[in-house]
Formats: sequence, structure tokens, C-alpha cells
Amino acid sequence: MKLYTYFRSSAAYRVRIALHLKGLAYDAVPVHLLRGGGEQRQPAYRAVNPGGLIPALVDGDTTLTQSLAIIEYLEETHPVMPLLPQDAAGRARVRALALTIAADTHPLTNLRVLQHLTGPLGLGEEAKMDWYRHWTGAGLATLEALLAQGDTGRFCHGDTPTLADCCLVPQVFNAQRFDIDLAPYPNVARIHATCADIPAFQAAHPSAQPDAE
Amino acid sequence: MKLYTYFRSSAAYRVRIALHLKGLAYDAVPVHLLRGGGEQRQPAYRAVNPGGLIPALVDGDTTLTQSLAIIEYLEETHPVMPLLPQDAAGRARVRALALTIAADTHPLTNLRVLQHLTGPLGLGEEAKMDWYRHWTGAGLATLEALLAQGDTGRFCHGDTPTLADCCLVPQVFNAQRFDIDLAPYPNVARIHATCADIPAFQAAHPSAQPDAE
Repeated sequence: MKLYTYFRSSAAYRVRIALHLKGLAYDAVPVHLLRGGGEQRQPAYRAVNPGGLIPALVDGDTTLTQSLAIIEYLEETHPVMPLLPQDAAGRARVRALALTIAADTHPLTNLRVLQHLTGPLGLGEEAKMDWYRHWTGAGLATLEALLAQGDTGRFCHGDTPTLADCCLVPQVFNAQRFDIDLAPYPNVARIHATCADIPAFQAAHPSAQPDAE
Repeated sequence: MKLYTYFRSSAAYRVRIALHLKGLAYDAVPVHLLRGGGEQRQPAYRAVNPGGLIPALVDGDTTLTQSLAIIEYLEETHPVMPLLPQDAAGRARVRALALTIAADTHPLTNLRVLQHLTGPLGLGEEAKMDWYRHWTGAGLATLEALLAQGDTGRFCHGDTPTLADCCLVPQVFNAQRFDIDLAPYPNVARIHATCADIPAFQAAHPSAQPDAE
């Protein structure tokens, strides 16, 4: 398998965690999100993923996009080390936690949106940071409220890592880069710390990537 | 089952389509997104969904949030009239199409974001509309590019409706409310028109809801 990735991309980081948790080998193809106006926006990468977003995973003849769709695919094709629970209600809870990050939080604060705020909208650095803090705070507060109830264990759901943890860890990495205080989100912080001790999460970390700067 | 819904909410509309396609009865509990500062933000609804977002589905003792997680749950618990294809690659394609809307497009242009632009950010109506058009256009362009390749049929994937169509139709409804021209997105427009003829999509339409205005 071949993963189009960028060391600091939250969405690529999610997929890297899933690949490492499942013990699946892959070749990393770095796509630099800042160089040359963004390599992800150039025709070479658009031919892989028309949306111009990272990551994309190529498995044989199949090109997959969207981090959550890729992880569901890995789950279906490589069920060992499951990333979703067995029961439908548990699976729904894990997916809802994942989407709280991947749909309601991260898309509002990713690179293209921050660039749009300071570019076309003409906002200053402080207003951009207010935006980042507002939406990241809202997302982490919802995540914390969801984790304070239900089947939270050592990880987001029970005592083994799931799709939800694959999303939580990159979101926290992102938040820490922007100096967000995690004190109001004790379950989020605790689960992040638990994951940080696990080799698969360490191998997927931005600092461990071939394109890390 | 009990669905917390708002007639014009894109995310609730997705779930209503899935429920009607599968022929599942439900009780609608309207939550008015504009009245009283937004009923979804009040403690009564936060007790159902801490994130304060619509929809939520209650099935027996289980409360489900996040439209895509809810539809996956319905698919697993009521497999008749499947909304995902049988093969892993097809399922990944359908999920990627759905997430192109539900993660990359709609969260950037939903009510709370538009209210934040004109409220705290102090943007005018025209700048708000520029924002809406920019992100909706980017999302529809990606969707169109993805539909121009792969196993697109009468619907987004093949000749029966899937999770992707449950997302496409509400996004187009939303775009049409804001006067977005669909001419640059011929596959999107064609599939929307195909769905509009189907009773399940008609029953889920905002204008057919008990809380329609």
C-alpha cells in the first residue's frame, strides 16, 4: 500500500495510526502542503485525489480518499486488531466520537481554512487564532462531554484503541501546536497520554515521519 | 425510534432519507434551531446530545448522534434496502463521497458557522455569502470530480441509492436555498433530479416535515 501523507496533517496521522495498530506495512509518499503553493493543489496530486486533500491510500488498483473511509476499509479488509467494537451501539458511539473530531472540529481549523481567513478574508493573526481556539474548544468540549458518559475506558471506548482514538490523538497534537490548554478536557488529556505510550501511536507521530521538519 | 430533527437541517435530512429508504417508522421531535437562541443549545437538548447539534436518534435505550454514525447504525441493525455496497472498495467510495459533503463541505457552512461570521467576526451579509459560495463550490466541485470517475450510475454509486445520495440531496437543497448555480456540476444535478422522483426522498424533504415553515 502507498499512503500520500504529510507529517503534520491530522487526517494522514489518523490513517498512519490505524496502519500501525494493524501492523500493515506501507510506503509513505510525502506531499508538502506549504511548498510550491501547496503540492496537494497541483495537477500531479489532483490526479490521485481530485479534492486536493491529504491523505490518499493506494491499495493495488484502488485509490481511497477521506481518512475515515480509509480506516473503515482497512477494518473490513484487515479485521485483525479491530478498531471498531462488535456491537452496533458501540460502533455507533465510536463513529460519533470520530466524527465529532473529523467532521465538526478539524475541517473548521485545517490549513486551507486558516489560509482563507488570513488571505481572502484579510483577518489578522490574532483573529485567526481566536477562530482556531473557538472551534477547537467547542469540539474538545463536546468530545469531553461524550467521553464523560458511556463506555469510556482506558481509551475512548473500552480498553483497546479504536477509530475514535485514531482521531483524538492527532486533534490533540494539533491543539497543542496552537497552545490550547487541555485542563478543561481531563478525559481527552488522559486518553491522549495513554496512547502516547503505545509504539503504534509513536510510529505514526509527525516527528517520526520521513518528511518531518 | 425517535428522531430529534429540524426541517431544514442538512444532517437531520440525511437521516430522514435513510429511515424512509429503509421503511423504518419514527417519531419526529422538532428542535427549532433559531427560536429562543436556538433550542439545540438549551439544557433540555444538551442532555440528549452534549454537542448541541441536530440530529439525534433514540432507539430503545441507545441515543445516537452524528448523522453518518446513525446511518451506519441503521444499516447494521436493518440491513434490508442496503445503503452501502457489498465490496470493500465500493463501500469506501460511498463513504468518501459522503464525507466529502459531511466533513469537508457542510460543517464549514452550517448555521453555527454563518452565525459566527456575522456575529463575533462582524462580517457583513455579502462577505458571509462569499464564504458560503467559496466552500460550497469547493465541495461540489470535488464531489463532481469524484462522480465523473468510478462506479457512478443512476445514483452516486451504481443504480440504487446509498449513503452518498443521503448526503448529496440535502447538500444540493442547501445550495439551492443560497442560489448556487448547479450548471458546473452536471452529475450532482442529474443525481439530485433522479432522487427527487423517489417517494422516500420526497417524504424526507424539508417541506414535508411537521415543523416545516
